[in-house]
Amino acid sequence: MQQKRLTAVLEEMKKSKIPQLIITDPATIFYLTNHWILPGERLLALVISTYGTKKMVISKLFPIEENLGVDLIYYDDVDDPIKIVEQYVDKDQKIGVDKNWPAHFLLRLMETIPYENFVNGSAVTDSVRAHKDSKELDLMRSVSKDNDQAVEQLSQLISKGLSEKEMAVELAKIYKNLGNSGFSFEPIIAYGANTADPHHITDDSTVKPGDSVTLDIGGVKNSYCSDMTRTFFYKKVSPRGQEIYEIVLEANKRAIEKVKPGVRFCEIDAAARDYITEKGYGDYFLHRTGHFIGIECHETGDVSATNTSLVEPGMVFSIEPGIYYPQEKVGVRIEDLVIATKTGVENLNHFSKDLQIIQ
Amino acid sequence: MQQKRLTAVLEEMKKSKIPQLIITDPATIFYLTNHWILPGERLLALVISTYGTKKMVISKLFPIEENLGVDLIYYDDVDDPIKIVEQYVDKDQKIGVDKNWPAHFLLRLMETIPYENFVNGSAVTDSVRAHKDSKELDLMRSVSKDNDQAVEQLSQLISKGLSEKEMAVELAKIYKNLGNSGFSFEPIIAYGANTADPHHITDDSTVKPGDSVTLDIGGVKNSYCSDMTRTFFYKKVSPRGQEIYEIVLEANKRAIEKVKPGVRFCEIDAAARDYITEKGYGDYFLHRTGHFIGIECHETGDVSATNTSLVEPGMVFSIEPGIYYPQEKVGVRIEDLVIATKTGVENLNHFSKDLQIIQ
Repeated sequence: MQQKRLTAVLEEMKKSKIPQLIITDPATIFYLTNHWILPGERLLALVISTYGTKKMVISKLFPIEENLGVDLIYYDDVDDPIKIVEQYVDKDQKIGVDKNWPAHFLLRLMETIPYENFVNGSAVTDSVRAHKDSKELDLMRSVSKDNDQAVEQLSQLISKGLSEKEMAVELAKIYKNLGNSGFSFEPIIAYGANTADPHHITDDSTVKPGDSVTLDIGGVKNSYCSDMTRTFFYKKVSPRGQEIYEIVLEANKRAIEKVKPGVRFCEIDAAARDYITEKGYGDYFLHRTGHFIGIECHETGDVSATNTSLVEPGMVFSIEPGIYYPQEKVGVRIEDLVIATKTGVENLNHFSKDLQIIQ
Repeated sequence: MQQKRLTAVLEEMKKSKIPQLIITDPATIFYLTNHWILPGERLLALVISTYGTKKMVISKLFPIEENLGVDLIYYDDVDDPIKIVEQYVDKDQKIGVDKNWPAHFLLRLMETIPYENFVNGSAVTDSVRAHKDSKELDLMRSVSKDNDQAVEQLSQLISKGLSEKEMAVELAKIYKNLGNSGFSFEPIIAYGANTADPHHITDDSTVKPGDSVTLDIGGVKNSYCSDMTRTFFYKKVSPRGQEIYEIVLEANKRAIEKVKPGVRFCEIDAAARDYITEKGYGDYFLHRTGHFIGIECHETGDVSATNTSLVEPGMVFSIEPGIYYPQEKVGVRIEDLVIATKTGVENLNHFSKDLQIIQ
């Protein structure tokens, strides 16, 4: 077990008055044990309590050779793992379960444990995970440094006439050569009109002169994720393209400048959104300004108008304003990852944000 | 709505005495509506009942332009979609929810609806989905025909000295050229000792003379999945490699011959397993003989020692016995997809199963 992290979770459990947790999210289990266990449909549960329980219920198909500092309770496919989990919880006390635990497991547990004892316990572990320790921050810096190089290498291929999907295949090779284990999310590679859809799915389109080109990409290294967006123009840029590029860039900078402990996330969102609105494009900025990131590309926590919580040191999140203008088939998003430090902000991405026209 | 499929689900609901279902699995929603809606963390729920309810609660971020034949109830990020779902269920009757619905949604619904009214309702939709209609069977034939070609093309690259991961990158291109939209699962490409691990994760290994080479691959076309395994040998084959190849091939054939309506799935499993055991390798056949497949690569239903249910026409599943012999760094798995027809079996894979030594 990562003892410091476990201690932090136990502290948070006490504060939240949830004395026991059934942790089933593989990312949280990795966070606490340094081991990825991907059980597919099979039950995997780390049961911990403020009074000393530390049991992991795990299928025999996923044997652990190392000492995790937790009792391993193996089951095989003829056993009923829910009956095993039941043995390690106090049925008369509140039990936190992970937000995404499949309903069929929870319904089975409720057959013998009063349903009113169950609560969504994810806020406990998510809030601890949101505060990255120094080792995690170093891993975030390292994977983002690779991502700067990945964007640079991929941008050099824009002029080669590859389709968006072919660019994604090349990107897989780039990450591999950088020592990344894969994508942190399906890359969004968009040309022209496709850049005006923030959720565009990479397709067979090819680039044409005048197109905006959005590269929203991330890799994974040592289990931590990168995520960055740059928008380029191919051969030439329209007046509208240049105008919205400059607005989005300024919004990105204003939001980043705002980051420091004690500021509310909604204020960071407003720094970007108000500027874009003031410039007349408020209706074309369709999403929140950013999301938390770490072991998972999207972690709990965001930079949005509804998040009134305060920035604290060690939080890592994206700043990614965008303007999507389908009328003229152009969209621009500029995204960096940042760390909230004790005094302000550290930007993890160093690839230039100046408007670049690819020849 | 796909009216025949909806009718079949409603029939099954009556049989199961579950008058209302909250369907949240995007694959089941696609099955019933012909639309993929991937809502990420946001709630998506198709509420149907045997007394006429047909409502889909959906985020405004995923607007539907076509007429789905169901009332669309849109919500935005400031609404509480659980409160909307609540309005469309009868709180006094049994409610089936999908097996994998995230716990946090279910816990919220239980705040106002008696917990004992909730049951896992997936058996209803899964059993309907397990019986493919003729259109689905044609799609399964088509995507598997492509997979025959994909295995052939990929096998021609074995001698090129590519790493397993590089082979996976080439495979992505092969599927693309075949008009498939992507992988149906992360391909397992394994050389030598890696073939002795049935769950090997494709890595940077390269092929050496004498290696067994396992290609366990599948693509997706028109939303239906293929999945096939062939094992080759590079330059030469050891006596052990040849022996286990012949045993696995015979086990594969015996299991396939067994398939027809009225036979129990455990009998099909036994046809493969008993033969392998008789030949002395029972301890090295580490997994079930097969799994159901369709819109998802792994659907509910399997060919295993514990599945005593009967084969019925229209069911599609894999037959994939294997022997994994780490002592001599060799493993063999041979997998076909089959349809249970009214009178017997149709094999969807036609790529040769003869032992092939790649030069």
